[in-house]
This record gives sequence, structure tokens and C-alpha cells, in this order.
Amino acid sequence: MDRIIELNTTIIAAASAVGKKEHEGPLGSCFDIHDEEDRYGQPSWEKCESAMQRAAMNIAIKKSGIKENEIEAIFDGDLLNQCTGSSYGMLGYEIPYFGLYGACSTAAEGIMLASIMTTHGVFRYAAAVTSSHFCSAERQYRTPVEYGSQRAPTAQWTVTGAGAFIIGPGGKVRVTAALPGIVREKGIKDASNMGAAMAPAAAETILRYVILRGGRVDDLDLVVTGDLGYEGNAILQDLLGRDRADICDRLADCGMMIYDRARQDVHSGGSGCGCSAVVLASYLLPKLESRELKKIVLVGTGALMSPLTLQQGEGIPAIAHLIELQCAE
Amino acid sequence: MDRIIELNTTIIAAASAVGKKEHEGPLGSCFDIHDEEDRYGQPSWEKCESAMQRAAMNIAIKKSGIKENEIEAIFDGDLLNQCTGSSYGMLGYEIPYFGLYGACSTAAEGIMLASIMTTHGVFRYAAAVTSSHFCSAERQYRTPVEYGSQRAPTAQWTVTGAGAFIIGPGGKVRVTAALPGIVREKGIKDASNMGAAMAPAAAETILRYVILRGGRVDDLDLVVTGDLGYEGNAILQDLLGRDRADICDRLADCGMMIYDRARQDVHSGGSGCGCSAVVLASYLLPKLESRELKKIVLVGTGALMSPLTLQQGEGIPAIAHLIELQCAE
Repeated sequence: MDRIIELNTTIIAAASAVGKKEHEGPLGSCFDIHDEEDRYGQPSWEKCESAMQRAAMNIAIKKSGIKENEIEAIFDGDLLNQCTGSSYGMLGYEIPYFGLYGACSTAAEGIMLASIMTTHGVFRYAAAVTSSHFCSAERQYRTPVEYGSQRAPTAQWTVTGAGAFIIGPGGKVRVTAALPGIVREKGIKDASNMGAAMAPAAAETILRYVILRGGRVDDLDLVVTGDLGYEGNAILQDLLGRDRADICDRLADCGMMIYDRARQDVHSGGSGCGCSAVVLASYLLPKLESRELKKIVLVGTGALMSPLTLQQGEGIPAIAHLIELQCAE
Repeated sequence: MDRIIELNTTIIAAASAVGKKEHEGPLGSCFDIHDEEDRYGQPSWEKCESAMQRAAMNIAIKKSGIKENEIEAIFDGDLLNQCTGSSYGMLGYEIPYFGLYGACSTAAEGIMLASIMTTHGVFRYAAAVTSSHFCSAERQYRTPVEYGSQRAPTAQWTVTGAGAFIIGPGGKVRVTAALPGIVREKGIKDASNMGAAMAPAAAETILRYVILRGGRVDDLDLVVTGDLGYEGNAILQDLLGRDRADICDRLADCGMMIYDRARQDVHSGGSGCGCSAVVLASYLLPKLESRELKKIVLVGTGALMSPLTLQQGEGIPAIAHLIELQCAE
């Protein structure tokens, strides 16, 4: 039986740490911290991810006003093989750790799990953390940036950034519901077109949400996807438009918001675990806190392939996890 | 504040799918299904993992007596880059999917999360699934088996196998508590000695459990670690023995149980996500069902490094997640 998970918790605090390009983008002034060299003082891109996670986590803890040892669980994952941005990043926190792999949907998956746990009192406070880095992602999924390979028009630019969220009672943004996604694969095999691979999963999760809410979604200010980019967003509009033109009017995408397409040469937009994490942490949540936005859903999108499965001729499975966020009553 | 998560749910059914070597081992007759060619009809080792996961999942669903569409969530992960054994394996199930990365602790992490969810009624039924494959793990973490490279005495043999668990009300084995682990790194950098890297994390989780239970652990029949192997088990005994000789008497390790060390040439024993999953599913759970065992804890152990982090000179972070299992009252 398909059903929405009703939740009753809040996001107490959130923080973002980003790179140079993200700081130069249209949301640049929103982010908590940035590093002009995309390194955060580290000798490798992978170690930089861990450092960004710690920076975001520490700032979020500080903003939250709660003590580090009051946080009873961390939900964390990233794009690196074996999620090492997370496991090395969270070394040193005396907090139980749940490793996730949701690709670029990790922020939504982590917030969802942390919100379920705090709603039911399993933990009083829990954290959701994630990161991505353009250079580590290029090296791992495509080719090292030093090779200077040409990018396809549908390719997206992996966001260099980390986001951290402290979940529990007492915050200004309520997490009121969640709808976890189902893995879907619709035949897309092009690693330079993640948007097309993920759009069907996003459409399905959005349509499930609309149906399960009995069609009553007029009160949504925004339906924000994680990182479909321009290509995936156009496909999503096609997929939804047949039945739900009303939703299309309120669609937005973190991958389209984070860079200035005309000025920053990012082709189809931003992507990566960090994309939805930092846009949510530093742009959307403040608007919910100030009541400029009253109710939104974030649809975290993730492509669950590996370079190896594509070499073996398989399609790209994708997932879309939805969380419903509202301003304080 | 450190605390045990008290749970009130059951494992309704479990199933295992293994390879040739596991079938030839001392627990060989316990497993539900095996394939003499370690392929499950697939053209690649990676696709074999997905096929094993589906086989285990389907058998577990059949044994459970509940319908597939009654399962409201799958918690799944594996050792492959981007956890593709899981994401491709669970394609085709119309069930929301939570991707995990806990390395070899994934079975314990998944059962823990599924048990929390079903205890609190978030889902009525949930599944935990995981897999590993000797050949895909060798290719990814060390060298392809075709190279015939020599193995260190402390090296372990990745189990070819998948386990699936259906969690919810009505089963014969109760999940009564959980204690998630904290990431620890104690300076071990040898990728051929996972046991040494993971033993400190296992010791810490076991000691936390003993302390949080007020030292009252005399009723435990077994303290079963996931895949420390002979090397890691000896270190764990050293670490615990100083204070807790009583626990050492009841220690067991899935990696030491699954193969016959004298006859099967596995050096330090079995490892991999599949190791604790198939031993729990097909050897330990039946003993709890028949009340031959009354109360055990499974301590799922995981090494959270990647080949790249070792190349970059880092140590191996590890984690140990504990679940407490009891026979029916």
C-alpha cells in the first residue's frame, strides 16, 4: 500500500560550505562559507569533501544552539566510491553514524530518515550531512579535469559543496511529510545526461505525492527537484504536463538555481549531492524561516549507476525522495 | 547521551543465496540456494550480485507468507562502487528504496533501520537486503582474480552471497534492541588486514552495549561479530579480555563460521556484506527460531575505506552496528 509518511519535526539549523564557482553564482552570498581554491586546506579533492562536511556540520551545530553530544545520530553519504567523504569526514564526532548511498538524493534521504527518527523519539536530535566536489566527481565518473575533455550539452556541473542539517524539536521549518522513492530505469545509458535518467523517477514521486494528497496541492509554493538541470527539467515538464500543468507552474530545480547558465558555462546546470543540500540549507530554508515561502516539497533526485555498470551496457537507475517542508504555524 | 534503542519487532523470514565455496563450507546445507558457477546465470560478477539479491529477496518474501506489495520499504546496500548490486537488484520491486552504505556492516544497519521503522509503525513490513561477491570485490578492491596475485595471511575471503530479511510483526525471532556504531580509525592502513581495522570498533560497540545494559549480559548465548575473521577476532579478544573475559567466552564470528579454514584455504576467514547476512539468515536465525539459542547480539562490522583513500595514505575507518535478537517468549 502506497502512503505518505506523516512527520512532526523541524529543521533546527542548516549550514553550507561551497567552492569558488558556487560562491560566484547567483546564490553566492547565501552560503555560510566558501574556499576560493576549492580545497579547504586539503591536499586532495576527496579530503576536501570531508573537510567541507566538517565545516558545514560544525557551523550547523553552532547555529542550532544545541551541544554536539546531544545529537544522537548522523545520516550521511556522498558520491565517492565507498562514501569516503562521509566516513572520513565524520571521524572525530562522538555520534553514531548511519552510512547512506542515495547518490544526489542523499540530502533528501538523510533528512527523511533523521526526521522519521526524531518524529518518533528514537533520537531527540539527529543530523543529515552530504557533500560533492566537481574535481573528485569528474575523476571518478568521467575523466580527471586535467585531461581537458569536452563536455556534452546535456552534461551537468557537479557542485563543490557540503550541507548539514540538524533535525529535532524547536526549529522554525517544519518537516511535515516524506515520500521515499522507488528505483526506476527507463533506458537512458548516457552518463552525460543524468537529467533524462532521473526525470521519470522525479515525475513518478511527484505524481504519487499528488495522488496520495488527494490532489490537494494548491498550497504548495514550490516543487523543487534536486538536480535535474535544464535537460531533466524540460523532460519532467513534458512528463507532468500531460496531467498536471498546475504543478509545472511551480517547478524549480536546485541545479538550475545555483549557477548562472549564461555566465558560468555549466551546460545543463548543477548536480551532485551538494547541489540540493546547499541550495536547501542556505537559500530555501531561510525563505521558509522568514515565511516568504510557506510550503514546499523538495524532491531529491539520484542516479544510481556506476561507471562500471555503464561499461557493461546497463541503463541508469534513478530514484527521487520527497520531503514536505512548511514554515512555522 | 549514549543509549540503546529499545525495539519491539520481529524477523518474519530470511533467506540466503550463496556461491560454490560457501555451499562447500561447514554451513553449506543451511543456505536456501547456491550456484556452482557463482554466476546465477549472469554475464558479469556485478550482475550476479543483483541476481543473488533478487533470489534471496524472493525466497524471503515467499517464506514470510506476506505479499510483496505489503512490504513498504527496502533498506539495501553492498560493497560495489555506488552500491549497484542493490540498485539494479531491486529494480522491478514496486517498493520504496533506501540506499545504504555500511560496507560489511550493511546487514546489521539495514535490519536496525527496518526494525526501528516497524517498531514505530512507520512501515508495517520492511525488508533488509545485502550482497557481496568474491570476484567483484577482488576486482574492485584488490586485483582481478585472473591476475593470480598472492594473498596475505591476514587477508579474508569475500563471501559470495546475498541475504534478505523481512521485518515486521508476527515472526519467531524478536529484534529487541539496537546500538548503532561510531566511526573509528586506529591507524591500520593495510587493506589485507580488515580484521585489525575493524576490531577496535567492534570492541567499543560491545563495551558500550555492556555498560548501557548495566553489565547484565549473562543471558547472552552468543556475541557474534560480522566478519573480523581469525585475525580480528584475536585482536577483539585482546581488547575485551582486559575487562570482559566473560564476553570472550561467548564470542563468535560469522567469518570464522562460514568456511572450513583447514580445508578451504581462506586465510583469515570470510568477509563481505554477504558474510554476516547469510550466516544470520540461514544458521543463527533458525537456531533462535528453534530456541536452541535464546538471546544473541550480532555486531555487524564494516571497514569504510576505499582503495583511493589507502593510496592517499589514510587509515581505515571502521564501524560496528549491534542488534539484539531473542527467541519468541
